[in-house]
Amino acid sequence: MQFTTEKHLDDSVLEREFSLGEIPGILWTPGSAPAPLILLGHPGSLHQMYPRLVERARQAVAEGFAAATIELPGSGVRPRSAAAEEARADLRRALAAGGPVEDGIVDRLVLPLVEKAVPEWRAALDALLSLPEIGGPVGFSGGVIAIGVRLAVVEPRISAALLFAGSFVPRTMFEEARQVTIPLHVLLQWDDEGNDRQLALDLFDAFGSTEKTLHANMGGHTGVPRFEGDAANRFFARHLK
Amino acid sequence: MQFTTEKHLDDSVLEREFSLGEIPGILWTPGSAPAPLILLGHPGSLHQMYPRLVERARQAVAEGFAAATIELPGSGVRPRSAAAEEARADLRRALAAGGPVEDGIVDRLVLPLVEKAVPEWRAALDALLSLPEIGGPVGFSGGVIAIGVRLAVVEPRISAALLFAGSFVPRTMFEEARQVTIPLHVLLQWDDEGNDRQLALDLFDAFGSTEKTLHANMGGHTGVPRFEGDAANRFFARHLK
Repeated sequence: MQFTTEKHLDDSVLEREFSLGEIPGILWTPGSAPAPLILLGHPGSLHQMYPRLVERARQAVAEGFAAATIELPGSGVRPRSAAAEEARADLRRALAAGGPVEDGIVDRLVLPLVEKAVPEWRAALDALLSLPEIGGPVGFSGGVIAIGVRLAVVEPRISAALLFAGSFVPRTMFEEARQVTIPLHVLLQWDDEGNDRQLALDLFDAFGSTEKTLHANMGGHTGVPRFEGDAANRFFARHLK
Repeated sequence: MQFTTEKHLDDSVLEREFSLGEIPGILWTPGSAPAPLILLGHPGSLHQMYPRLVERARQAVAEGFAAATIELPGSGVRPRSAAAEEARADLRRALAAGGPVEDGIVDRLVLPLVEKAVPEWRAALDALLSLPEIGGPVGFSGGVIAIGVRLAVVEPRISAALLFAGSFVPRTMFEEARQVTIPLHVLLQWDDEGNDRQLALDLFDAFGSTEKTLHANMGGHTGVPRFEGDAANRFFARHLK
C-alpha cells in the first residue's frame, strides 16, 4: 500500500489517498493512536461518491474510528467490464420499464463483482491493519450489500456490519445470508427507486445473526436521514469499542 | 386529577400515583421546571406492567421528559368487559392454534378499547398539561398501537409518536393510519409471537407521515433491546425539544 496524497480536513481529520496495486483507496484517521476501523462500502466511483463518503468518514472519525474505502472493480479509474456494463444497462431498462427484474440480470451484474471485489477488500484490510494508527476490531458499513454479506461470511476480522439494503442481491446469496452470525444493522430506504423492498425484507429475515436490527426510512435511495449517521456510530460503538 | 401517593425513586425521579375519576394513573417528573411530556402506552394492568413502565419512565426522565400513563378500560382495578374478555380468549385460541386471526376477533377486541380509551387519554392530557411541572410538547410512546394511531389522528397536542407494533390493528383503522402526519418511530419485534409481521409492515407503509422510521429487532414480544430506549429518547429529543 502506497500513500499518494495527504491532507488535514478542516476538522483535523487526516485524509490520505493510497494505491493498493492498481486499486485506489482513501483512508481517514482521527490521530496516531490505534483506532478501530470502519470499511466504507459504496456502489462504485470514488470520485462521484466522495462527498457522501467524506461525510460518513467524518462522522466515524468524530467518534474515534478510522475509516477507509477502495475503488470497486470496473468503476472510477479502473478498467470497465463489458459484461458488467451490459448487465447494468439491462437492469436500468428493467427498472425503467417498471417491471420485475429477472434474477439473471442481477446475477450477471452482482456475482462477478462480489467474486472480484471481496478478495480486494480483504487485501486492503491486510494492508490497513498493518498501519500503527489502525487497531481493531473492524466493521463494514454501506453497500454494495452483496459484498458486505460475502465479507461478513468469509472475513473473520469483521466484527459487525451496517448493510445498506440499496441494491439487488442474487437469490443464490440468501444461503450465505443464513451463515452470517455477526451483529448486523441493516438500513432500508422504504421507497428506494432502485431496489426491491420485499427482497430486502426477505434478506433481513434470512440473516443468521441473533443481533440484527432493521432501520427503514423514507426519502428514496439517496435520502437516508442524517440521524442515521448517529445511529450507525452507536451501533459500531457497541461492537467495536 | 387527584394525587394519591408520592415518592422519590432512588435516582431522584418523583413518582406520583393519581386518580382521574375512576381511572388510576402514574406520573413521573424530573423536577419543577415545565418539561415536555411523554404518554406511556401499555397493554393494560399498571400493576403487572409497572416494572417495564418505570424503566421506560426513568429513561425518559433522565433525558428531561416527564412521563405519565393511565390504566386501560377493563384492566387492572377497572371493571372487566365481558365482550373484551371473550374476544381476548378467542384471540389466544387463534394464536395457540397457529392459524390466521380472523378480522372479526381483532375488531371485537380492539375497536371498543380504542373508542373507550382514547377519550380517557385525552382527558388525562387535559389534567396533566394543567400542572406547572408539565409543559409541552407531548409525545405518545408504546402500545396499544391502535390507541396510538387514533390519538395521532384526533389529538393535535401530540407532536410525535413512538408506536410499538406489538398488537393487532383492525383493518378498518388502516384508513386512519393514512391520515397520520406527525413524525413516527415504529418499533417492531420481528418474531413477535403475539402479532402479525406482515400486518405491521403494511401498517407502517400506510402511515401518511413524511418522517416515519421503522426499527425491527429480534427477541420476541418482550425482547426489545435496551438500546432502543436510547433511540426512543433521541427521536423524542428531535421532536419535543
